[in-house]
Amino acid sequence: MNINQKSWLTVDAKSDFPIQNIPFGIVRLPNKEVVAATRIGDKVINMAALYELGYFQSINEIAENVFNSSSLNNFIELGKPVWQSVRKVLIELFDEKNDALEKNSSHRSKVLLGISEVETLLPVEVGDYTDFYSSIEHATNVGIMFRGKENALMPNWKHLPVGYHGRSSSIVVSGTNIHRPKGQMKPPEQEVPVFGASKLMDFELEMAFVCGKKTELGESVNIEEAEDHIFGMLIFNDLSARDIQGWEYVPLGPFLGKNFGSVVSPWIVTLDALDVFRTESPEQQPEVLPYLKSSGKKSFDLNLEVLIQPEGGEENLICQSNHKYLYWNISQQLAHQTVNGCNINVGDMYASGTISGPTENSFGSMLELTWRGTKPLKLNDGSERKFINDMDTVIMRAYGEKDGLRIGFGESVCKILPAK
Amino acid sequence: MNINQKSWLTVDAKSDFPIQNIPFGIVRLPNKEVVAATRIGDKVINMAALYELGYFQSINEIAENVFNSSSLNNFIELGKPVWQSVRKVLIELFDEKNDALEKNSSHRSKVLLGISEVETLLPVEVGDYTDFYSSIEHATNVGIMFRGKENALMPNWKHLPVGYHGRSSSIVVSGTNIHRPKGQMKPPEQEVPVFGASKLMDFELEMAFVCGKKTELGESVNIEEAEDHIFGMLIFNDLSARDIQGWEYVPLGPFLGKNFGSVVSPWIVTLDALDVFRTESPEQQPEVLPYLKSSGKKSFDLNLEVLIQPEGGEENLICQSNHKYLYWNISQQLAHQTVNGCNINVGDMYASGTISGPTENSFGSMLELTWRGTKPLKLNDGSERKFINDMDTVIMRAYGEKDGLRIGFGESVCKILPAK
Repeated sequence: MNINQKSWLTVDAKSDFPIQNIPFGIVRLPNKEVVAATRIGDKVINMAALYELGYFQSINEIAENVFNSSSLNNFIELGKPVWQSVRKVLIELFDEKNDALEKNSSHRSKVLLGISEVETLLPVEVGDYTDFYSSIEHATNVGIMFRGKENALMPNWKHLPVGYHGRSSSIVVSGTNIHRPKGQMKPPEQEVPVFGASKLMDFELEMAFVCGKKTELGESVNIEEAEDHIFGMLIFNDLSARDIQGWEYVPLGPFLGKNFGSVVSPWIVTLDALDVFRTESPEQQPEVLPYLKSSGKKSFDLNLEVLIQPEGGEENLICQSNHKYLYWNISQQLAHQTVNGCNINVGDMYASGTISGPTENSFGSMLELTWRGTKPLKLNDGSERKFINDMDTVIMRAYGEKDGLRIGFGESVCKILPAK
Repeated sequence: MNINQKSWLTVDAKSDFPIQNIPFGIVRLPNKEVVAATRIGDKVINMAALYELGYFQSINEIAENVFNSSSLNNFIELGKPVWQSVRKVLIELFDEKNDALEKNSSHRSKVLLGISEVETLLPVEVGDYTDFYSSIEHATNVGIMFRGKENALMPNWKHLPVGYHGRSSSIVVSGTNIHRPKGQMKPPEQEVPVFGASKLMDFELEMAFVCGKKTELGESVNIEEAEDHIFGMLIFNDLSARDIQGWEYVPLGPFLGKNFGSVVSPWIVTLDALDVFRTESPEQQPEVLPYLKSSGKKSFDLNLEVLIQPEGGEENLICQSNHKYLYWNISQQLAHQTVNGCNINVGDMYASGTISGPTENSFGSMLELTWRGTKPLKLNDGSERKFINDMDTVIMRAYGEKDGLRIGFGESVCKILPAK
């Protein structure tokens, strides 16, 4: 990657989308057509139009239905060499030294749109979704709160990346507003459960990777080949109703407390674009079993932020964390997911679990930031939050920065509406 | 339903598939074409061929792609009135008093196949899969084994149908053989976990219902309307590796111990066909919350059997249970699943959890039948089983019987192959 490369499209210094990014997404055009797209700066690039105009003719595998589609699954299924060829074509086409498309105003008008002209949609059809629990700071914080300091981490936690199956139907794209869920909960002072709207609405700051290559039932992915099965990553806000979760989750895990809405950012950033942000994973003691031993830089130095914006008010930055804090990296997660022969499919999402860091301002959920509501957060407008209020908007951002190059994910934005 | 009605096709008295059943499935024909089908006796009825020959012309909603499909999802999405019209057309066409098709040998040869001529495939594309835990006998047995008699049932168990999200990618059709999974487990005598093939392979006798009508995120299904969202049921063998499960499942629930293969029967039996087997649900004390109160006969009197067949040996009936034992009925399960606004989709599967009865021979898993291996089962060939051996075939059957009418589900069959 050439970190000094520039595009003939304008890219603000603070943009997540320089020519080195080339993320992939699905957008609805003003004429209601739904197509695959990428983005440079604030311009959306219609890839179906580029195909029609012949710009991908060097890539034999690309056919008409690949970009004229309501999901990226068909494109992703073509395989990593094709993603990389498409990336290369796009970078060449928009390089400042290449004026072929820049000078062709007819083509340009068919290909380029302002970001505000399109609606960004969920980029993939999600088959299965797993939620890991891979931040040691998060697992320890939650463990201390619910079981005390001595038993904070379960005996299995450092031996395997704990995870559970989540609900894929309720994964939605940024901009989808979610009603506060109703359900059963049992306040400690009550003998029997009550029914009502959740009082303890929370977010969880997570990143998810999207599967790029399927396996058959019975196959396992070797940890050194895990990244060949990963298309890219996105921001994942795993909304959680703590009171519903607390009453239901023993012994079979989270269910209705977490399946009423998970909000992802619209653009999938590929591992190729994230390559410059690779970093060592945390040291693991005790030593892990051989199938979980990874080598090289398999973690990513990505800044993560959470902001709360009250209705009509301003944004409040309440959390600054980093993807590199994760104890278990994405290669370890995928090797574990498949070690028993569980098959994976293109479009599957594998979320990290809440990514908390070592300091109090890096905790990735209200549960931890306010320590179960005992230390409310003070917002700029003077109001306090123990958990999320109705009409609060939760914003998550993620980006890497190195040697003046910023590559980011955009945002996951979600307003919490009152219970129906 | 006319329980005395007969078809001009031969139906053995012990067949699960009289003219009153009309289950739906997907088959691969000898010419490799994949189509929707039903079954009477040992004859498979090609519904795509019936459509082409004009037999469904009275039903406007049916178009060519509905039955020429690798899943029933398109058909199911047409809605309950259409399923019921199709059922009615099929019952009329194969009634012994109607010789229109019977006399037309050209049409007959296009429509009818012997069951051994086709390959039965997974009948639906499964979006999400939930596994409930709705048998009080099973939950109590497991609770006694792992927590003792006093704490057998968790405090939430009688207040809500406990469930968790499962893996849909590894749901396979009867006849798919499954390799014993490998993974981490921690034998009690060991300090650290070990890696290897599971030593405690088990089945779980379950039934699942298939969602027939979607909802949007934020909507809840009223319990009195729940059955409008249910297309039908099938047998569900939830294979479980008890040693992998035991080490991983606290605190977030089952994961690799249960996602290496779940084996369903190929024919979905509709609620219309099961209507004659309706029965009262068990009394629930304490009283449940209003959203879980169901009225009328929402349970089904269906005999369930599990058999083990060693390689080259004979079948051993090891469990006889009944669907009616379930404490939580399917309407309660679906009302609970959606009470928080979780959206459901056509093709989703909702499994019951292991269905155990009150007597020792009605327990629905080896874990319970052999009481954690302490009381091995003796098979006809003199061998013993604490759990499932390699090359054992697990067979599950389910059927209702009333006033001489038998309607059944066929089988879920799966051979356990050695670990890879």
